Order: sequence, then C-alpha cells, then structure tokens
Amino acid sequence: MTVRIFNGTSPIDAWPADARAIAYGDGLFETMRVHRGSVPWWDAHWERLVRGAQRLRLSLPGQAQVREEATALFDDAGDGVLKLLLGRGGTGRGYAPAANVAPIWMLSRHSLPTSLPHAKRAGLILRWCETRLALQPLLAGIKHCNRLEQVLARAECGDADVDEGLMLNHDGMVVSATAANVFVWRDGRWWTPPVDRCGVAGVCRSRLIPALDAIEAQLSKEDVEGAEAVFLCNAVRGILAVAQLGARAWPSHRAVDDARRELARIHPGFAFDLTP
Amino acid sequence: MTVRIFNGTSPIDAWPADARAIAYGDGLFETMRVHRGSVPWWDAHWERLVRGAQRLRLSLPGQAQVREEATALFDDAGDGVLKLLLGRGGTGRGYAPAANVAPIWMLSRHSLPTSLPHAKRAGLILRWCETRLALQPLLAGIKHCNRLEQVLARAECGDADVDEGLMLNHDGMVVSATAANVFVWRDGRWWTPPVDRCGVAGVCRSRLIPALDAIEAQLSKEDVEGAEAVFLCNAVRGILAVAQLGARAWPSHRAVDDARRELARIHPGFAFDLTP
Repeated sequence: MTVRIFNGTSPIDAWPADARAIAYGDGLFETMRVHRGSVPWWDAHWERLVRGAQRLRLSLPGQAQVREEATALFDDAGDGVLKLLLGRGGTGRGYAPAANVAPIWMLSRHSLPTSLPHAKRAGLILRWCETRLALQPLLAGIKHCNRLEQVLARAECGDADVDEGLMLNHDGMVVSATAANVFVWRDGRWWTPPVDRCGVAGVCRSRLIPALDAIEAQLSKEDVEGAEAVFLCNAVRGILAVAQLGARAWPSHRAVDDARRELARIHPGFAFDLTP
Repeated sequence: MTVRIFNGTSPIDAWPADARAIAYGDGLFETMRVHRGSVPWWDAHWERLVRGAQRLRLSLPGQAQVREEATALFDDAGDGVLKLLLGRGGTGRGYAPAANVAPIWMLSRHSLPTSLPHAKRAGLILRWCETRLALQPLLAGIKHCNRLEQVLARAECGDADVDEGLMLNHDGMVVSATAANVFVWRDGRWWTPPVDRCGVAGVCRSRLIPALDAIEAQLSKEDVEGAEAVFLCNAVRGILAVAQLGARAWPSHRAVDDARRELARIHPGFAFDLTP
C-alpha cells in the first residue's frame, strides 16, 4: 500500500492522534477501480462523496488536488484500487463538529483483489448473515466510515468456503452483501433493493440500474432464493455471479452474462475475458 | 493533550494509515474522570471495555500495562480526563477482521471540561434532537467508535444557548443526551431509559441506578417533559441538573441535590461545593 495523507492542502506524515475519523468514524470513503492509471468512474465516485459530505456537513478537499495526487499514485499507468478517505478536521474531545475546518484526507493505492470475476467463474458462495442493518435514513446511501455492522456481518462469513454474506435490514428485508450490492433476475428482469433507509448506494449499482433497466423494490429472502439468477456488484470487482446461497444453488445464467457484457461496455476495467 | 499510542505492547509514534479504527470506526473507547491522579471508577470502565471487546471480538491489551501507562500520564497527581481508545489490529482493505491480532490502543490526557456542575449551577438548557438513534441491539450499550449519529445530533445543538440535546430512538422513545444518560423524577422516584437496543450503558448511570434505586423503563417525550425534575449524567461531569428543555423549565429540586450528594459519596471527584 502506498499512501498520502493531507491536512487541508498540506501533506502530513500521519493521522493526528485526535482525528475525528479515529475517535468517531467521522468520515467518508470511496474505493475506486483504476484501469491503466485512470479511474473511469471518477465523476460518479466524486458525486457520491459530495452527497455524503453535504449530509454530514464535512468540508471537501479541492477536487483538482485530489485528482492530481491520485494520478501521481498511478503514474506507472497500472491497474489497481484507489481508496480515498475523507475525515472531518478539527481536534479535541467531544462530538460537536467544528464548522468550516479543513478536512484530513488520505489516498492509498492497493492491488486488485484476487477474487475478480475471471477468478470466480464458477460463481460466489454466499450465506445469510445474522447481523442486520439498522434503519437510519440519515446515514443511508452514503459511504461513511461507521462500518461496525459490516465488520460484524463479515466476521460471520469466516468459513473458507463462504465468499460473502447477504444482509437483511431491521425489518427483515434484503439490503445487500457486506461489501457489494445485489441484483436478482425474476420475471424476465433485474431487481435490486432500495438503499434509502440503510445500505450503500453503490457506484456500480447506480450505473447498472439504468443500463439494465432494473427496478428498485423491496426484496424478501424468499424473493432472492426464488430468483432465476443473482449477482453481486461493486465498483472494484464489477459483476460477480452467485452460484450458491445456503442450500440454494444456481447454474450460470444468460442474463448474468448479458449484464457483464453491458458493464464491460460502460467501464473498460471490467472487460474480462470470460469465455469458457 | 498528552498522548501515548501502542501496537500490542509496543509504543508507536502514530496510528498506522490503514488502521481499522480510521477506516471503519472499528474500536471502542472509555472516557474516565481522573481525581488526584487516580481513576476511582477504573474497574467499571474496564468491565464495560471487556464487554464491548467480547461483543466486537476485539483483542484487549493487558490491563496492567494500560493502568501503568495511565498512571504515568497523571504522575503529577492532577485532576483531568483520561481517554482510552482501543482499535482492532490488522491491516489491509476489507471488512473481514483478522483473528487474534494485537490491538492498537491509545491513552490521552485532557483537561476537565469547563461545564462541571459547579459551573452550571443554574442547570443545563436542552433541546430535542431531530436525529434519532437507530435500533441495533448488537451495538447497544457498548461504547464503540461508530458515533456519526451523536455527531449529527450534537451539530443540531450548535446554538450558544443550548448545552445538550436529548435523542429519541427510531420508535420515538427517549434514549439519552448525545453524551450523557438521562434520569427523570416522577412519582417520587428516579427513572431512566433502557439501553438494550441503542444508546450507551454509561458508567455513571450504572452506578446511579442501584444507588438511587432507579427504575429502567421506556420513557416518552411527554414522560420527560412532565417530570418533576431531570438530570443528565456521565462519568466525566457527574450529575448535571436540567433547567430547561424547549419551552419547559424546571426550578432546582431537592431530589437532584440528594442524587448529587449520593454521587459525591461514591466518587470523590464529584464532591463539588454546590452550596448556594
């Protein structure tokens, strides 16, 4: 991991010990796929960051500087993952956020995950998580740094033979995987749960809804288990077919292949060779 | 602020950039009142930390080392506030927590707040917060570092003439202030809301429930507004009388004075001179 940290516009060596990101998870993040040194979905990530910053009243760094530093991290024109973490500035103990304080932000470069679609051609093995997502409309949709629910849910998927976990909300409706959104194929079209009371409005999800003419709707466990096909998606790994969820197994499905072709059309990083 | 940070048993200069406390708020904290160099409620704070660590499956540092370092921070036998922040160890991107990794932890020394009871003799001015607490039994009661709800709620109390805000849960029942528990005097005894679905099991609250023979029960807004007396409490500031909540005002009340005397009896740091 290569990393650069800034307080406002100035580089710093490390996070201040009393940073609010450490004390309260008082921040936002974006995890971006880098393809040949560039971030094809930069604008979409930045827009979500702006929405999150408005919701939390966080100050933003200048986009030009962030982009310049991001480019410098990938000046070898390589592939990988770029993470941006934006923390509220200001110091001292206490929940009260200071107004108009420059943010502390960090860019880091990471390798591509090993479980990209071409390495998971057979599809993911999922389980239902016991950990449920609380309903909090004020924090729903944005990618904030309060992620203990996801940490607890992911810890449930510790078995080597389970790739990811699906989470329900407080009311028992399906929301997402711990680190990906979920789409199901039913009645000849794609459906995905809303993210207005909990969950994250994934950048890949937001791109796929119009591209696949998908419908946002409440989905029950039975709706997912009874679907003809299921995939997970996020902005790093693209579309990952689901092969199994508990006792339910799915063979490969034409609709998932079509969705992947569509995704490859709108993001060059996801043009994997998936021919059998 | 004086601060010491450790990775396992070894001192480090700063939090690692990829610490999970920064990325996900994956940690716990305790904020303790120090009286003449010692922490009278150390055991109670440590017990809550242990309960939180069990819930999140966090590794704990050795209590003896933590206590030794805490004592060193207050080797002038001064008064103040000691904060302990315990973060999950391990590095790398992704929610999956590594098992059995040494924690990263931090002790910091802070001044006493300016709004101690003898400085707020007239009582606090409160408001109702719009920000509600989501229901999440898995995280309720413990003092974890996912505190965006409290940050948003506290930001609502930005007016100079408002001291704190009272928060309701998702179902509209009263839980606590943003950084204190709440007790109300009704029918000749003290009542305080449960903290099993959201909120923090405050150390001061836990000591006061038996000491005041208080009852844990669901309280509505009307129950609080209709009470004969109200106080907030936490382990740093002790008992703070409430003078006003929106349009409702309370004169000083004998039951609050009695509760303060009881608290002074069980914690020497809270033996303020409160004679008029």
